Amino acid sequence: MQTKILLDESHIPKAWYNIIPDLPGPLAPVINPRTLQPVTPDDLLPIFPMALIEQEVSTQRWIPIPDEVRDIYRSWRPSPLFRAYRLEQALGTPAKIYYKYEGVSPAGSHKPNSAIPQAWYNKQAGIRRLATETGAGQWGSSLALACSLFGLECTVYMVKVSCTQKPYRRSMMQLWGAEVIPSPSEFTNAGRTILAHDPESPGSLGIAISEAVEDAASHPDTNYALGSVLNHVCLHQTVIGLEAKEQMAIAGTYPDVVIACCGGGSNFAGLAFPFIADRATGKQVRCLAVEPASCPTLTKGVYAFDYGDTAQMAPIAMMYTLGHDFVPPGIHAGGLRYHGESPLVSQLYHAGAIEAKAYKQTACFEGALLFARSEGIVPAPESSHAVRAAIDEAVLAKEEGKEKTILFGLSGHGQLDMGAYDAYLSGGLEDYEYPEALIRASLERLPQVNV
Amino acid sequence: MQTKILLDESHIPKAWYNIIPDLPGPLAPVINPRTLQPVTPDDLLPIFPMALIEQEVSTQRWIPIPDEVRDIYRSWRPSPLFRAYRLEQALGTPAKIYYKYEGVSPAGSHKPNSAIPQAWYNKQAGIRRLATETGAGQWGSSLALACSLFGLECTVYMVKVSCTQKPYRRSMMQLWGAEVIPSPSEFTNAGRTILAHDPESPGSLGIAISEAVEDAASHPDTNYALGSVLNHVCLHQTVIGLEAKEQMAIAGTYPDVVIACCGGGSNFAGLAFPFIADRATGKQVRCLAVEPASCPTLTKGVYAFDYGDTAQMAPIAMMYTLGHDFVPPGIHAGGLRYHGESPLVSQLYHAGAIEAKAYKQTACFEGALLFARSEGIVPAPESSHAVRAAIDEAVLAKEEGKEKTILFGLSGHGQLDMGAYDAYLSGGLEDYEYPEALIRASLERLPQVNV
Repeated sequence: MQTKILLDESHIPKAWYNIIPDLPGPLAPVINPRTLQPVTPDDLLPIFPMALIEQEVSTQRWIPIPDEVRDIYRSWRPSPLFRAYRLEQALGTPAKIYYKYEGVSPAGSHKPNSAIPQAWYNKQAGIRRLATETGAGQWGSSLALACSLFGLECTVYMVKVSCTQKPYRRSMMQLWGAEVIPSPSEFTNAGRTILAHDPESPGSLGIAISEAVEDAASHPDTNYALGSVLNHVCLHQTVIGLEAKEQMAIAGTYPDVVIACCGGGSNFAGLAFPFIADRATGKQVRCLAVEPASCPTLTKGVYAFDYGDTAQMAPIAMMYTLGHDFVPPGIHAGGLRYHGESPLVSQLYHAGAIEAKAYKQTACFEGALLFARSEGIVPAPESSHAVRAAIDEAVLAKEEGKEKTILFGLSGHGQLDMGAYDAYLSGGLEDYEYPEALIRASLERLPQVNV
Repeated sequence: MQTKILLDESHIPKAWYNIIPDLPGPLAPVINPRTLQPVTPDDLLPIFPMALIEQEVSTQRWIPIPDEVRDIYRSWRPSPLFRAYRLEQALGTPAKIYYKYEGVSPAGSHKPNSAIPQAWYNKQAGIRRLATETGAGQWGSSLALACSLFGLECTVYMVKVSCTQKPYRRSMMQLWGAEVIPSPSEFTNAGRTILAHDPESPGSLGIAISEAVEDAASHPDTNYALGSVLNHVCLHQTVIGLEAKEQMAIAGTYPDVVIACCGGGSNFAGLAFPFIADRATGKQVRCLAVEPASCPTLTKGVYAFDYGDTAQMAPIAMMYTLGHDFVPPGIHAGGLRYHGESPLVSQLYHAGAIEAKAYKQTACFEGALLFARSEGIVPAPESSHAVRAAIDEAVLAKEEGKEKTILFGLSGHGQLDMGAYDAYLSGGLEDYEYPEALIRASLERLPQVNV
């Protein structure tokens, strides 16, 4: 009754999988918010190193992973793949449930998979400091870790509501040497503008991105690093799915459905894209992106050009969006509170190549509790969305009397999110309703792009 | 540059190593606190199942691990052994530093290694509920996890100062379904007696043990479970050292020194005992137990008969002790705040078979910070004692120009102890002086035993 499939370090992928050449069609151009013309590499050089700009637009299917990055990956990769025997038993399902666990990284989530290469490429480019934003704190702590390992300075603009909800994430960033600034802050024009309007603003990922981008753009020795959404971030995360495919093969099976939570999209992309690649060989796998009902980008947003950030400084991309000034309620899955969606994931969803589903947070915590009490591991609130969807797939398999193989991504552990579990256990968790009027208003302010 | 040695599940040990037949001499009897005569199995049956009582006194060198226990161990065992390349580089040491990492368990520490079998043997004996105490919360959360997996109820008396310092540990126990009671409490005679004397008592492990034992002894369907000190707990933890020996062999080396933090002693025992066993084959390995300067049981206590708990309800054992009513200051390494010491570890120390060293907490956090910024993983405050001692051994090797192989136990991660790191980083950490007068007074109250 083998519970986990481990791989030794020689099985850390030697190249990332780039889905761009395998997309259903060409990607829409990314637009410069000032000129409303397609972005050029020169537009991006003030905030990104050339190596990452090249990855952003590369049409090579495989991009080699530098040895220095693989050396750091060795500290926790390949991550384990688990068979959830006890959860299956608790559900009485005929389905086989597998989960790929990224909580084994020092930061406790999948985020270091991209933080490490981003820090490394910036170090190679002679950059001294990285600025970034963080919602739940998982990306910020991962970049702080990466900067610590490569000797870079790190400034993190942390969404204000998350600073309060997740003080231990802040401490972890500081432990790894980063400077943490609650956002919106007085340190940037973007932050000051928001505060002038709403001094009590809880912040949002969109606002924090504006602050970090402004910081990077106004300091020549500083670059910006983004933890999701962009093509190169999705690219880096594909180590998850590449390893999982090898591990599923060792387990002697292949998933009927692959499930992952989806905020900016890189976690979903990381697990699902390598399986989507298999469709070329005739394999049929459903891929399900799970998002919160309070920030339902794929399931209730529109596919349109929109700004990546609130202050309209970041590039405009063709993506599913709730509007760049949509501020979602302060749910506990802080990492899923982004108004937009990875253009790659968006295009696949628009083409019908993947599915999406939204859950309210109480349902997710209910699933996470069952998972913790049967499998042991405490899921991150973000990951609990995938847990819940996997449970529902397994219950459906039971109702239909079908054997089915389910693979889901457990993107992180929730040991730093116990305040959220406290709220759930004490019945104090609110299920925010989707604010239709707010989104409609926000969608009226999309940019007009003609390219 | 292989960073970690993994073993697959077939390498989970099939038997625990029992050091009793290999001790330098016979163990002193354990004494019944009421009769002052040696404890009989009948004395222990009200609070322990017979299987564990048998393990407590067994002279068999190898005790088989039940399949049901190994099946749960599969969720995280064998735990990884790491080579600390980046720490070595940061220190510029010729020493090779390895660490065995137990933070991969769902509870984040080594404690489930014993919680799982204890819950299982009690379940087999028809027990419905387990009562226990916890200091840092690591044992309590581990027993809560184990009870959840085997369908037992769980009541945890948590040292009051730790409830405040580590609220997330409390939440985690509740998430796994346990009832958590701050100790001293009004629910037991032991608790009420302490509170009558000192309503503001911060609590101690000794007091919490008294409460849990009283709870178990006064409810026929309830047993007691202890997270350290006892022979059977040390026994269960030997999976750590047994795996580490196999992993060190795969790495092609053998340690010159084995280092582990030592509170009640089971973590130290778990890593060190299997290496001590090798001395029979002529291998010479130093074993170093590291304790806090504020609770220096081995380095400043006496080797004498003393009560296991404050209320004098638990058995009297021959051990190193600071006196059963010694209440150590509220340092952050809550798991190392026990007045006594495992009789097995005590006898080995008294015989000169192992070494001990005490550190103040600031020095430990300093070491932990260097470790986190080079290796990535955030050590638990308890584990930081071993980290610090390993760093000092490595620095000594550099000064002496000696190649040396160091193995230390990283018994848990510190992601739930970020408040302690906050205090350290903000300079707000106190280095408590060893309260000589308190200990002298406490040692005057040792029981008089003549057997």
